[in-house]
Amino acid sequence: MNKMQPAMERLRDSCAQKGPLCVGLDTDPSYLPPEVLRLYDSPAEAVLSYNKALIHELSPCAGTFKVQIAYYEALGLAGLKTYAETLKILRAQNIPFIADIKRGDIADTASAYARAHFEGDFEADIITLNPYMGFDTLEPFINYLEKNGKAAFVLLRTSNQGMKDIENLALSNAEAQKISHVFTDSAIESDARVLDAVGAGLKRIAQRFSAQKFNISPLGAVVGCTEEENARMIRNRYPEIFFLIPGYGAQGGAARIAATLLDKAGGTVNSSRGILTAWKKDQTLEIRARSGSLSLEDCVKSAYQASFAAKADLLAAKKLLA
Amino acid sequence: MNKMQPAMERLRDSCAQKGPLCVGLDTDPSYLPPEVLRLYDSPAEAVLSYNKALIHELSPCAGTFKVQIAYYEALGLAGLKTYAETLKILRAQNIPFIADIKRGDIADTASAYARAHFEGDFEADIITLNPYMGFDTLEPFINYLEKNGKAAFVLLRTSNQGMKDIENLALSNAEAQKISHVFTDSAIESDARVLDAVGAGLKRIAQRFSAQKFNISPLGAVVGCTEEENARMIRNRYPEIFFLIPGYGAQGGAARIAATLLDKAGGTVNSSRGILTAWKKDQTLEIRARSGSLSLEDCVKSAYQASFAAKADLLAAKKLLA
Repeated sequence: MNKMQPAMERLRDSCAQKGPLCVGLDTDPSYLPPEVLRLYDSPAEAVLSYNKALIHELSPCAGTFKVQIAYYEALGLAGLKTYAETLKILRAQNIPFIADIKRGDIADTASAYARAHFEGDFEADIITLNPYMGFDTLEPFINYLEKNGKAAFVLLRTSNQGMKDIENLALSNAEAQKISHVFTDSAIESDARVLDAVGAGLKRIAQRFSAQKFNISPLGAVVGCTEEENARMIRNRYPEIFFLIPGYGAQGGAARIAATLLDKAGGTVNSSRGILTAWKKDQTLEIRARSGSLSLEDCVKSAYQASFAAKADLLAAKKLLA
Repeated sequence: MNKMQPAMERLRDSCAQKGPLCVGLDTDPSYLPPEVLRLYDSPAEAVLSYNKALIHELSPCAGTFKVQIAYYEALGLAGLKTYAETLKILRAQNIPFIADIKRGDIADTASAYARAHFEGDFEADIITLNPYMGFDTLEPFINYLEKNGKAAFVLLRTSNQGMKDIENLALSNAEAQKISHVFTDSAIESDARVLDAVGAGLKRIAQRFSAQKFNISPLGAVVGCTEEENARMIRNRYPEIFFLIPGYGAQGGAARIAATLLDKAGGTVNSSRGILTAWKKDQTLEIRARSGSLSLEDCVKSAYQASFAAKADLLAAKKLLA
């Protein structure tokens, strides 16, 4: 894979080749059995070992990996060292992984966040961003997208219940009019939501990336697969945008909703807990679990089987849709 | 000062006693002269020294300090060590400081962020939060507010131009109706913005904190002082809520707008760059600056004078208003 290829293109290609599954490394120490945790000097070291093994074993069935920084921040400095090490392993294997940081702040501060996560100890090629404070807060990151081949996913429609509180609020007719020209879909004129204003901004920004340099916009969107009703509409409104799709698996999102969102420009479907804690539901491990003799390898094996099953589930749903 | 007193109360009392200025420790290494930076083994160490001296010298005229984590993340692991050390110094002095982290994520991840910033290496008593993903994402933090006396400021109306993109979008009449009962101000029925929906949520949540335990809601709001027109309206809509007020000084916000927002439940007015880089505009240092012989003490002295002037400016504006 060409290292100079823009990150979003690398991600799309990797998902085309290995399948749409994104394995989420939201690795909380509690996702490991106590008998495994005890083998390490610290929870942060246990997490690093689990991550290493997961990256190594799950790579064949994972289009990408997503590292959720919150779980590492929760372990303090030691946790962030594990975070940095995990990113290094993923980079060394040339995996176009996603650092799920959801940062967002005013320009100077956003520049600091861009340096923090597109350079140095925490360098990633693809990150997630929160758009609440406005489009000027995205600019320092967009600069890296244009010049350094980096990529970012902006929160559009998240997978939690609370998405109705702000993201899904109905805008006034005047606001709807202002953004409607960006969409081909006329329904937006009578029912535009806050998330559509975010999306309109993303579409406007996407036009700035030269088609010569980018086969796909380096600015993607986070769209959860927990609501069937609007999945087709959202996919049609953003045919050109690659989606990061949370909510599948433990969060209750269905493969057929994910498959709808995988249409057009495509996307990658995240599963974290369902994979990382698959050993808890693995019947073949029941006796060992009861006797407290599970190993890290047991957990990784269950995680592999869960990833394999998730990948198959997603591909089957995609096929049904086609 | 009673350590068990809830953090928002401690912050309010400190600002009543020492004045409304919040000194922002957005300490970028470039805010120090090169000749000072060179004295340290790393930029992160220089930043720590500057922070230590600033906390020590500026405490008399600062109601509080705000530490912007982005600048520390930008320096990688070494930077976050400096961040942790800075927080430790502030805690040791019992200063009710604010960790400006602007985190926001779905429930399990938000729990991890809450552990990360209300416990352990990065423990703070007061943090900032981003509400875009909805009110369920605030719950894990609210739990700490209720049980551990912690506090949080939620982004409401930020100080950047981009606030018009999402925060200030007009809602439909139906959405306006849904939130109007929370406000006494009837203007909201014909002109409700996204930020009002955030505010309505904050007011609803604020009611959950028992009046016996809390003299002031532990849930505050971030309201920038860069727009004169709406400052009075916003202050009147949230008479019970303490504000964190950015935008003063280097960002161009005026003291009289800040003073309006300091009315009712009060607030604290942040200034970062204007104070940290005051040495660049200090005429008494001109000769030393030109000959490259500035010291850390010079920078701290200028910062002290700038804080003193900012505090006086804010208090004078408050007096004019009264």
